[in-house]
Amino acid sequence: MARFINKSQTEIGESPFELRFRGTKKSDKILLRVIDFDAENVEECKLKEFKEISRYIDKETITWLNVDGLHDPKLMEQIGEVFEFDRMIMSDVLNTDQRPKVQEYEHCLFVSCKMLTFNEKKNQLISENLSLIIADKLLISFQEKRGDVFEPVRERIRKQKRKIRNSGTDYLSFALLDIVIDNYIFILSLMGERIEMIEEKLINNPTPDVLRLINEYKREINFMRKNILPAKEMAMALVKSDSEFLDDENVGVHLKELLDNINQAVEISDSYREILSDQLNIYHMTLSSKLNDVMKFLTIFSVIFIPLTFIAGIYGTNFDNLPELHFKYSYFIMWGVMISITLGMIFYFKKRDWF
Amino acid sequence: MARFINKSQTEIGESPFELRFRGTKKSDKILLRVIDFDAENVEECKLKEFKEISRYIDKETITWLNVDGLHDPKLMEQIGEVFEFDRMIMSDVLNTDQRPKVQEYEHCLFVSCKMLTFNEKKNQLISENLSLIIADKLLISFQEKRGDVFEPVRERIRKQKRKIRNSGTDYLSFALLDIVIDNYIFILSLMGERIEMIEEKLINNPTPDVLRLINEYKREINFMRKNILPAKEMAMALVKSDSEFLDDENVGVHLKELLDNINQAVEISDSYREILSDQLNIYHMTLSSKLNDVMKFLTIFSVIFIPLTFIAGIYGTNFDNLPELHFKYSYFIMWGVMISITLGMIFYFKKRDWF
Amino acid sequence: MARFINKSQTEIGESPFELRFRGTKKSDKILLRVIDFDAENVEECKLKEFKEISRYIDKETITWLNVDGLHDPKLMEQIGEVFEFDRMIMSDVLNTDQRPKVQEYEHCLFVSCKMLTFNEKKNQLISENLSLIIADKLLISFQEKRGDVFEPVRERIRKQKRKIRNSGTDYLSFALLDIVIDNYIFILSLMGERIEMIEEKLINNPTPDVLRLINEYKREINFMRKNILPAKEMAMALVKSDSEFLDDENVGVHLKELLDNINQAVEISDSYREILSDQLNIYHMTLSSKLNDVMKFLTIFSVIFIPLTFIAGIYGTNFDNLPELHFKYSYFIMWGVMISITLGMIFYFKKRDWF
Amino acid sequence: MARFINKSQTEIGESPFELRFRGTKKSDKILLRVIDFDAENVEECKLKEFKEISRYIDKETITWLNVDGLHDPKLMEQIGEVFEFDRMIMSDVLNTDQRPKVQEYEHCLFVSCKMLTFNEKKNQLISENLSLIIADKLLISFQEKRGDVFEPVRERIRKQKRKIRNSGTDYLSFALLDIVIDNYIFILSLMGERIEMIEEKLINNPTPDVLRLINEYKREINFMRKNILPAKEMAMALVKSDSEFLDDENVGVHLKELLDNINQAVEISDSYREILSDQLNIYHMTLSSKLNDVMKFLTIFSVIFIPLTFIAGIYGTNFDNLPELHFKYSYFIMWGVMISITLGMIFYFKKRDWF
Amino acid sequence: MARFINKSQTEIGESPFELRFRGTKKSDKILLRVIDFDAENVEECKLKEFKEISRYIDKETITWLNVDGLHDPKLMEQIGEVFEFDRMIMSDVLNTDQRPKVQEYEHCLFVSCKMLTFNEKKNQLISENLSLIIADKLLISFQEKRGDVFEPVRERIRKQKRKIRNSGTDYLSFALLDIVIDNYIFILSLMGERIEMIEEKLINNPTPDVLRLINEYKREINFMRKNILPAKEMAMALVKSDSEFLDDENVGVHLKELLDNINQAVEISDSYREILSDQLNIYHMTLSSKLNDVMKFLTIFSVIFIPLTFIAGIYGTNFDNLPELHFKYSYFIMWGVMISITLGMIFYFKKRDWF
Repeated sequence: MARFINKSQTEIGESPFELRFRGTKKSDKILLRVIDFDAENVEECKLKEFKEISRYIDKETITWLNVDGLHDPKLMEQIGEVFEFDRMIMSDVLNTDQRPKVQEYEHCLFVSCKMLTFNEKKNQLISENLSLIIADKLLISFQEKRGDVFEPVRERIRKQKRKIRNSGTDYLSFALLDIVIDNYIFILSLMGERIEMIEEKLINNPTPDVLRLINEYKREINFMRKNILPAKEMAMALVKSDSEFLDDENVGVHLKELLDNINQAVEISDSYREILSDQLNIYHMTLSSKLNDVMKFLTIFSVIFIPLTFIAGIYGTNFDNLPELHFKYSYFIMWGVMISITLGMIFYFKKRDWF
Repeated sequence: MARFINKSQTEIGESPFELRFRGTKKSDKILLRVIDFDAENVEECKLKEFKEISRYIDKETITWLNVDGLHDPKLMEQIGEVFEFDRMIMSDVLNTDQRPKVQEYEHCLFVSCKMLTFNEKKNQLISENLSLIIADKLLISFQEKRGDVFEPVRERIRKQKRKIRNSGTDYLSFALLDIVIDNYIFILSLMGERIEMIEEKLINNPTPDVLRLINEYKREINFMRKNILPAKEMAMALVKSDSEFLDDENVGVHLKELLDNINQAVEISDSYREILSDQLNIYHMTLSSKLNDVMKFLTIFSVIFIPLTFIAGIYGTNFDNLPELHFKYSYFIMWGVMISITLGMIFYFKKRDWF
Repeated sequence: MARFINKSQTEIGESPFELRFRGTKKSDKILLRVIDFDAENVEECKLKEFKEISRYIDKETITWLNVDGLHDPKLMEQIGEVFEFDRMIMSDVLNTDQRPKVQEYEHCLFVSCKMLTFNEKKNQLISENLSLIIADKLLISFQEKRGDVFEPVRERIRKQKRKIRNSGTDYLSFALLDIVIDNYIFILSLMGERIEMIEEKLINNPTPDVLRLINEYKREINFMRKNILPAKEMAMALVKSDSEFLDDENVGVHLKELLDNINQAVEISDSYREILSDQLNIYHMTLSSKLNDVMKFLTIFSVIFIPLTFIAGIYGTNFDNLPELHFKYSYFIMWGVMISITLGMIFYFKKRDWF
Repeated sequence: MARFINKSQTEIGESPFELRFRGTKKSDKILLRVIDFDAENVEECKLKEFKEISRYIDKETITWLNVDGLHDPKLMEQIGEVFEFDRMIMSDVLNTDQRPKVQEYEHCLFVSCKMLTFNEKKNQLISENLSLIIADKLLISFQEKRGDVFEPVRERIRKQKRKIRNSGTDYLSFALLDIVIDNYIFILSLMGERIEMIEEKLINNPTPDVLRLINEYKREINFMRKNILPAKEMAMALVKSDSEFLDDENVGVHLKELLDNINQAVEISDSYREILSDQLNIYHMTLSSKLNDVMKFLTIFSVIFIPLTFIAGIYGTNFDNLPELHFKYSYFIMWGVMISITLGMIFYFKKRDWF
Repeated sequence: MARFINKSQTEIGESPFELRFRGTKKSDKILLRVIDFDAENVEECKLKEFKEISRYIDKETITWLNVDGLHDPKLMEQIGEVFEFDRMIMSDVLNTDQRPKVQEYEHCLFVSCKMLTFNEKKNQLISENLSLIIADKLLISFQEKRGDVFEPVRERIRKQKRKIRNSGTDYLSFALLDIVIDNYIFILSLMGERIEMIEEKLINNPTPDVLRLINEYKREINFMRKNILPAKEMAMALVKSDSEFLDDENVGVHLKELLDNINQAVEISDSYREILSDQLNIYHMTLSSKLNDVMKFLTIFSVIFIPLTFIAGIYGTNFDNLPELHFKYSYFIMWGVMISITLGMIFYFKKRDWF
């Protein structure tokens, strides 16, 4: 199974209205959490059956239904029918491999993007699809797995933060998307810290582990970009959208900030990509420079012995007439000559700055 | 014959209305398959002669004629004449080397793009031209070879899927193009899986086979991009088109999704391109690092013997006066000195972390 | 003389109205060919003197004057005067080093672009400037050298192809430009075939000749891009132009196709550029990998002999007291030890997968 | 803590209205400096308590409040309340890690960007956030640390430069931003000078220090780009803005110049990035070329001795029947042969231009 | 002093109206040349004092004042006052480090760009700022140094070229800018010729001088791009400008041509940049390939002697019982064996294509 994209042959040519769960990740049971609030009251509950939602539907309060888990197409169909959504929408919710997008429908606005989490042990990013259906007084969010990422928003609702309790579903949606984008930047700052720490090791001790690390981060930054670059288009579409479900006065400024944050994430990931490329270069150069030093030293070492061994070889010959062999101090003179040659060579190499 | 583009000198300066078959791929006999349907009925048949099409023309039902094989210019001319198409259109159908495009004519809309298939044995993509002529109540699709890629759509028509049976030729065309694009993504996910698997081999066992593989995938990704990048323009043209043959309410959302899917395909192919470049780098570095280790080991090994051989050389000389030769334990002392030197050097090299 | 651009100091500051021939290529005599036609009749002739053109001017027929050779500024001036063209136009015709462009004047439309030919022996592209002046019932084309590239169009006119005989000068101009662009694609397919054939040689036999070839093609593709990239702007200008001399109904579709073809040419040249870069990489890696194998083999070969030579050296010493020398089978034992060491080392190197 | 971006997990999901100080840099006490002026008078003072600002608020004069230090959220809240700013604004002021931006509010215009300073000792850029709130007759500037960068503007106000004293807060804001941008260019010229000086060392003496230097500058240029590229968008937004707080007649030309200056900064940083890349290349090539020369010399040196040592080895053998040993001048002939071989090899190597 | 940008700390925060000379290049005396002309008459003179200009101001003729040298701020102020220019303009004239720009003022149009000259000895481009102030019947041009680049235009005015004498200051300005751009192309063709000549040397004789040359040209092309890329924006602004000082009918076509020429310059500089990169690659590969050949040869040479020396070593041992030593023809057999081994190895290496 490829990590960057995954499509089975059986999906080809399927009707776009088909409701089919494509993933393999299952939370044991699909969790349906409702928060229903207005400026005065907050009510929170976990639905045992989807039917219970009827209690909240016709009230004037804002209802946020969070669905954790997508592996029950029947439930999805039921949701679509109860709220009378276009069939395309529920199919989009289940199509977890699609690009982030904003799609305007008659009765609602559909937004999807990728949530990223960083597995610090494996140095690996995990991507999960998040879908939002924004309707009048109703927000439904779909996640692939159970998770607590949206807890801070729930906390803000409970704590009666003025803005979030007085605004409609548009501000609430912004709050959720904001968490997703903040997470991108948080992960980048986490990875960034580690990437910047590589630099030191790089020059002092360029082990293959460092190389492996650089390549891992390169791959993850690449994976991140694949996920956040299209999110930029999604945010741009939100900023430009004149949908009735996004009140410009209420969330206009905030959506612009969202876009700004994604832009920042993209720029920082670009910076780190370049830093990693540079590090790879430094690694390569440091390593080859170290090797070169070793080889040069060893070569010089051998070279010094070569003429000495040759001289010894000369006087190891068995010629009958080899006058030097018979002088009294020949042997000692030989040593003297050898030492002179050695010193001469060392001096010469030093002078040419060879070691 | 070049694979990326192919143009013979004789084609230069030809009239754009010339109907000439340029390819070499021939299905033995051109296959003409008709599906004629409306919300209530479906009728399927293979035409023995093109004339039989007259049966379907004047009915109120939707007629989809699928033509497998382009090597009979006369048949093409006949088709053009029967339906009173602009002559340019039939010439475009036969011009299989052209870029994907959308061209609006008075009586119809012409769309062409490339279908890709992946030969898993040869690790090679094969590209085939697909042309669609979308008219009122009539869709004609042209393929270069017999194939069953559109079977899922036929199946959907047979199974009376509400949408496809109740919509016009625009939705049907979308369904066909959707299969083509889905195929791009499917092929990318197929190649992606293999590309991602290279990584492991890369570090443990960087054989020339791995190098060959990386280069093959690079070439194929390049080939794919050449085919899908212009398809993006084609999809954009469809989304923006205000042709009467594309009912915006009926297929607007779907065409946007088509464009989204092509964008995804382009982005993923970009990701894999980068991954392959990185892999090439890793390959290069791993290989050179391995070689360096070997060479360093061998060099150090030789270097250790060099002074030893020199010492042996010294005492192989035949000087008359060489006092050491005559001491009783000289030979054993020599061994001792040699062992000390060896250990000293090993210790020194270890300390400097050279092996 | 630089091949990519050529400007002499004397040209700086010249009036843009100056008529001066800048090139060095001269056809011996400037050739003036006229084809004059309408739906019924065709008349062809070579003018001996330019004055003879008067015969064709006031007729209702379409007149195409083709001028081969630009080295006679006086003739150019005469042409400009007879047809009452803006002086800028004739200066543009002579300015053969300029970028492809479309310029609308009161009485005519000026179009220029580069014609490329490929010298297969030298593996070199040759670029020549083509200028078209499109007026009412009159088309003048200027080439730098005599050539037969437009013969197919003449043939189509002679053969009474309906469209070309019934349309105005706009369709005729399109036909000429189409030949130029088709030529780009033809040359690319010619080069492409050869470039793709390099791949095989690359892995089996990476000789310096292959390197030279790759670099030659890189340079030529670069040269081609320099010529066709601006042609894209030219075609875009034609498509967007609302000049009275281009009847949108008559040539709109064809000009769009022209643009499509240039786009294709650009994309294919991009593909080949990348392929050539990859080939350079493969060349480099294959070569260095081959060298490494040789060096490793040689080094291992030497390393095996080093301890053997050392042992022989030991027993070549002349110590009085060297017990091993006097044992009966010492020599044979030495051989045994040497063979053991050799086998041990070979085994060790094999095990570590060093050769 | 990563230098390029920094986000703690606790910030995720916070309300955008939260006033929280995120940084660690604290000036001991927040410094509040006021300059209040009109065409005739200037009054300068340091506020002890923020309340004192009331003196200046209702006057017809222009009031510029400069706040050095952001670590007191309460003060920030107080500022926001006194001037009745949107709560978002004060939160933006405290969000020092955000991208440069321009945001229009009902009662004011918010502008933020990065101020850079260059630590010449550490070769490191330090970035600090600057926020401007431009209102009617009121300008508030926020810096993270105490600093004197704006002193020249104060000096111009004191010296009664006509323009600055007669214009509104828009021209004053421009003057502050101008200093920030001028600083970018000044730092680039500082770094540029040093980068250009590297070139010389590079060829004569490519030490690892030079490599370290190049990499340091690469990282800093990268850091700079991360800060100034988004500033370009900020300037573009200012130029295009039709806010009532920016009088186009008064500052239009100046804002355009601001944009021009940022563009220049971006272009120059691009130039230096390329120069550094080229330098890295030169470093690499020079180093490897030097090493190659050394290795070639050493190898040739060894190679010359190899046949000589072999010959000596031959005559060191102890064969009973080795005729040459017994000729009278054998030894001297051997020397002659050796010298001839040496000279021959040197001649051969010289001829092939190997050293 | 950095060559790409130069800013001193003292300039930071200066009022944009400040008139200060920043450069160091001084022509000894500022030269004021006037050409005053209309269709009938031309009058040329060098002003001794600026006051003399009054003679030309109120006449109906066109007045072109050329100022060579900027080092006298007082003169600049005087010029600004006499013609009642906006203070910003004169400050822009003196700000020689700014980007090329077009700025429309009430009474005039300000245009600035860089003039380049090529020092052929040092292989170095020199850039100089040119400012034009285009007003009604008045054109003032400012150069940093005395120079004769505009002589051809003066010559055209003297020779009574119809267009230049009958047009206003807009055509005259175009003529001056045209010279500047023509110069870009001339320099590129000059550099191009040399760059293309490098290729040959590259393969036959890749000396370090060639490397130095390539790097010099890379730096200069980089420098050129830094100067001409922004000039493109300047030209675009002129083409789009609807200033009253640029009569579209009179100079529209010419300004478009100007833009075309800059585009050509940019494209050619791109081509040469790529060619230089390729050359660097070829240099690197040729060099390393040459070195590899040498090292391989040397290594093979040594390897052949290794077993021979080993054999000689064996028979140099002093074992009492070494039977081969005592056979009559042992020595000659040894030689035979040695020659066989040598031939065998040479044959083996040749067969594996190692040299």
